[in-house]
Amino acid sequence: MEGKFEQDLGDSHHNPCVEIAMEIHKVETPPKRSSLQKLKNRLKETFFPDDPLRQFKGKSSKQKWLLGFQYFIPILQWGPHYNLNLFKSDVVSGLTIASLAIPQGISYAKLANLPPIVGLYSSFVPPLVYAMLGSSRDVAIGPVSIASLLMGSMLRQEVSPTLEPLLFLQLAFTSTFFAGLFQASLGFLRLGFIIDFLSKATLTGFMGGAAIIVALQQLKALLGIKHFTKEMGLIHVMSSIFHNTKEWSWQTILMGFCFLVFMLVARHISIKTPKLFWVSAGAPLLSMVLSTIIVFVCKAQHHGISVIGKLEEGLNPPSWNMLHFHGSHIGLVLKTSLITGIISLTEGIAVGKTFAALKNYQVDGNKEMIAIGVMNVVGSTTSCYITTGSFSRSAVNHKAGVKTVVSNVIMAVTVMVTLLFLMPLFRYTPNLVLGAIIVTAVIGLIDIPAAYQIWKVDKFDFIVLLCAFFGVIFISVEEGLALAVGISIFKMVLQMTRPKTVVLGNIPGTDIFRNKHQYKDAVSIPGFLILSIQSFISFANSNYLNERISRWIQDYEEEEETKSRSDLRFVILDLTAVSAIDTNGVTFFQELWSVVEKKGVKLVLVNPVGEVMEKLQNADGTDNLLRSNNLYLTVGEAVSSLFSSMKVVSSSHG
Amino acid sequence: MEGKFEQDLGDSHHNPCVEIAMEIHKVETPPKRSSLQKLKNRLKETFFPDDPLRQFKGKSSKQKWLLGFQYFIPILQWGPHYNLNLFKSDVVSGLTIASLAIPQGISYAKLANLPPIVGLYSSFVPPLVYAMLGSSRDVAIGPVSIASLLMGSMLRQEVSPTLEPLLFLQLAFTSTFFAGLFQASLGFLRLGFIIDFLSKATLTGFMGGAAIIVALQQLKALLGIKHFTKEMGLIHVMSSIFHNTKEWSWQTILMGFCFLVFMLVARHISIKTPKLFWVSAGAPLLSMVLSTIIVFVCKAQHHGISVIGKLEEGLNPPSWNMLHFHGSHIGLVLKTSLITGIISLTEGIAVGKTFAALKNYQVDGNKEMIAIGVMNVVGSTTSCYITTGSFSRSAVNHKAGVKTVVSNVIMAVTVMVTLLFLMPLFRYTPNLVLGAIIVTAVIGLIDIPAAYQIWKVDKFDFIVLLCAFFGVIFISVEEGLALAVGISIFKMVLQMTRPKTVVLGNIPGTDIFRNKHQYKDAVSIPGFLILSIQSFISFANSNYLNERISRWIQDYEEEEETKSRSDLRFVILDLTAVSAIDTNGVTFFQELWSVVEKKGVKLVLVNPVGEVMEKLQNADGTDNLLRSNNLYLTVGEAVSSLFSSMKVVSSSHG
Repeated sequence: MEGKFEQDLGDSHHNPCVEIAMEIHKVETPPKRSSLQKLKNRLKETFFPDDPLRQFKGKSSKQKWLLGFQYFIPILQWGPHYNLNLFKSDVVSGLTIASLAIPQGISYAKLANLPPIVGLYSSFVPPLVYAMLGSSRDVAIGPVSIASLLMGSMLRQEVSPTLEPLLFLQLAFTSTFFAGLFQASLGFLRLGFIIDFLSKATLTGFMGGAAIIVALQQLKALLGIKHFTKEMGLIHVMSSIFHNTKEWSWQTILMGFCFLVFMLVARHISIKTPKLFWVSAGAPLLSMVLSTIIVFVCKAQHHGISVIGKLEEGLNPPSWNMLHFHGSHIGLVLKTSLITGIISLTEGIAVGKTFAALKNYQVDGNKEMIAIGVMNVVGSTTSCYITTGSFSRSAVNHKAGVKTVVSNVIMAVTVMVTLLFLMPLFRYTPNLVLGAIIVTAVIGLIDIPAAYQIWKVDKFDFIVLLCAFFGVIFISVEEGLALAVGISIFKMVLQMTRPKTVVLGNIPGTDIFRNKHQYKDAVSIPGFLILSIQSFISFANSNYLNERISRWIQDYEEEEETKSRSDLRFVILDLTAVSAIDTNGVTFFQELWSVVEKKGVKLVLVNPVGEVMEKLQNADGTDNLLRSNNLYLTVGEAVSSLFSSMKVVSSSHG
Repeated sequence: MEGKFEQDLGDSHHNPCVEIAMEIHKVETPPKRSSLQKLKNRLKETFFPDDPLRQFKGKSSKQKWLLGFQYFIPILQWGPHYNLNLFKSDVVSGLTIASLAIPQGISYAKLANLPPIVGLYSSFVPPLVYAMLGSSRDVAIGPVSIASLLMGSMLRQEVSPTLEPLLFLQLAFTSTFFAGLFQASLGFLRLGFIIDFLSKATLTGFMGGAAIIVALQQLKALLGIKHFTKEMGLIHVMSSIFHNTKEWSWQTILMGFCFLVFMLVARHISIKTPKLFWVSAGAPLLSMVLSTIIVFVCKAQHHGISVIGKLEEGLNPPSWNMLHFHGSHIGLVLKTSLITGIISLTEGIAVGKTFAALKNYQVDGNKEMIAIGVMNVVGSTTSCYITTGSFSRSAVNHKAGVKTVVSNVIMAVTVMVTLLFLMPLFRYTPNLVLGAIIVTAVIGLIDIPAAYQIWKVDKFDFIVLLCAFFGVIFISVEEGLALAVGISIFKMVLQMTRPKTVVLGNIPGTDIFRNKHQYKDAVSIPGFLILSIQSFISFANSNYLNERISRWIQDYEEEEETKSRSDLRFVILDLTAVSAIDTNGVTFFQELWSVVEKKGVKLVLVNPVGEVMEKLQNADGTDNLLRSNNLYLTVGEAVSSLFSSMKVVSSSHG
């Protein structure tokens, strides 16, 4: 292939001499498929992009049944191959995460305005359910900070946890039930892509803001304030703190400060030396034990230090009779379940996928959603509130050498032992140590390096991040989140209403045409305006594209006047990047054709993809667009062919 | 350039012999621009795609002021050049559209449940305002059927036009005021692209459904029923008709049927012979005059034929004191103004653009919005309800040879004369003829050929059309519309969450790579998987793309096993169609890199556009992606370069 457009730049008229020894290739249409086939294919791509039935292909029906069971209940898959070596590793990691799960469970339940024991209940049943259904090996199941905060703050909008504790508990269980139902349905209906709408920027901003909100709430426990605001916002909390300076208790502040510094130092050590991960993993439990002993010995509960108080012994009581499916709060419950459901799902799936990628195994998002959903539905009937895979505990689990999901079982058994026999020990545990545990846990959610990366890469994403962050801090947790998601989607829609069109130029010595702005060497071919449209053409952008292309033509004509360039003869549209068109897209081409024709200019289409070809062929009144001398496979072929026809015309005129 | 991949298809291992005499071209990044410049450029493309300030460039400041005035008040532009010849044409067309505007104005006001005279008021002031501000020459301003129906049916949800006629009228004027304010703001804020979201399919379905609803409402007048339903839906209307058969008046039915047939025949003649456009243009007025004479002569008002009754003489009374900016109905008023505002704007802009394209002049959408908006705000203070450019009357205007917007002035003057002197003549005009006029007018909105075209071109668009059509007929006018718009946007978002990825193959004898599904000749290069991603990569689709590409790799590997093809060595991603990425997009590349690398396969990027290059360069941890042997300008160059490196490796091993 010899097509080159060597530009004689010395000549003011830029007449390129094109050597044509080029075969012209035809644009083809893909083989015909019926609308039904297309629909089937489309549905498959939308709902089954991961092709979950791939493994069933070409198996006998008995094998299919077995595989089907294994698909939904992964324990059947790995159970038979389980051995002692794996068990040893799982025991170590299970005990490690239990030492974190117990203090964090109690703390997060307090964060959700629930009785502390609910946090332990929630670290017992859900991990067992997940162990049967889940496909991630590294995830550690239990209550997490953000979902606890969301549930606590949203339900408190209508019901006071101090005045109506029973109703509040009932609403929490009901929300958990609906959240689980919603999560499982998303997985079952293969709508898991909904969580994709929480972009990295949204999540980074949201997590950072929520961490600050959570940390601020802990000032109640850490300062020993009794009359604390019920609002979440920064301003309310700050004014509440400085209006109640009389309530500050120096004993609480001193003790809280010491344990907070201790745990932060432990955290710092583990970050610096990843091998010493057990330092930060053990610090909360150690702090809890130490502080309890101090309180017990010094009788500090009589000196202004508030303690958890008496906790009941025993395993999870059933709670299916506490679920409310009607009543005046059902709207709030549904809203709460939707938001906590999505957020906890996002964390759980992200945890699963992150560690699966590290260990190079697959986690099926939709299957995980079913597992997490079922776990929460079952949890809601056994006195558990919303749980998911916790990022921080899963990281510890991973570092402690977990092999299978059995570590969750070990953790659950440890929690069970605690529930049965160790509850009296927590009686003198001070609330301040719970606050310190939460602050240490959430501080890791403020990810400044990630925010900096986003700033460097994409300024708009950074705006989304800021909206999420400040929205959460100053407006409310759920509205901040909604704001950021709204802006992300708005940007996406805007990107589609205003797709890019770029002018292509020839890279000298080749038949390659590239964006003139990006490739400074690329030169225009006189008489040709070569545009590349970089989006599908639909109702949302066909008007814009028409206006924009008219402006490119005007620009060319003005340049023509000022620089006495040769007349515009051809407008070539490179459609390589136009992945689809709709009815308005077809009209766009027809209108553009007539506009361009009135100027005595010819419109040429290059490399339309299959779907575009099909739709243009199906439409009436597009015959002129589809004539063979208007349709080329590459820009290079189009230019060399049209250029030679120009020469022929001008020589015959001469 | 000699790069060809001649496939030796006789060889079962498909070893291509590649002749390499190819220069490899570098991928470049566009020149650096600051974030501020980018933002400026982005804002310009979003809000000023038509570059309205182009004409101001390089002018003196005095000229700029003049041009600025002319820009906002186009009459200053064409006024000075107006002459007698133009005036003659405008008088003819102005009188022609007046003969349509008077009967239609009265009829449409009845459709909106307003006093008939408001229809005439609305054909007087708004055309005069538009004549000063509007830039379309062919448009005929006045009340239109769809907007009248919308306003009438929406306001009736809360206020009865028969029980509280004054309040209803006040709400109609207030809605018109807000609709105008909204329309003008859209234009002023350059948000005109919002009307683009009403796709062709949505509009076709909506118009068809609304036409049927409107025609059904006319059965009240055409059958002479007194107790008619207040609902709009098909089922209510039908049951109302057949439960009130006793009220049917044969005199009304006979007379109505005759005039309806007369006007439909006239319409048919004008469609068949476009020169005879005046036949259908004159028919409504003729019918009105004839029917009035018949009623007057036969005293038919005493024989079951209902008539308009006494109308007041005189020009538009001021109505600014009737605007309600607060009160219990303000929510409904705002909703009504939003929907009628958008719909009437869509019709007005479409009319303007259609005829501008026919006569080859430009209509600035945003400027038109300001003109239509101001016209409605002024109208609302002078007893006019919502008006816009009417499609049917503009077509007549165009065919009657209109030259400038002065024809609207002629029409307004004619209406003024009617208002001042001819009102008593309408006293005996029967309501049935108004019904027949409306039915004849809206029948043209049912566009079956357009619906068939949409069915042929795009099945999904046809579903949108059906949703709009049946939604309007069976649910409600505004909900049907909302449904169709919602589905259109949902499709667009879905298209982005599930972008296409296609496998490319080499077209034999060239270095061109195209979709293997579309080009049956295209052949794979053994060891290479060449994919083209056809969308920007963002948070909404990065997870999907990752999964989808993994599946392509799995497919390749399975084929490898069954057909004993050579091992996968390279995954080449053709990024020509990836117009942009965001932070999640960057992560997508990093994750894909590590997944692919673990399989011992190399990831190669081809032709990333400027923005993608910039973002990859700005991000940390993307150095491996940007190494020169991973980045090629064309797929052909990438394959030939990598293929030669493979040869070198295998020969050195051998």
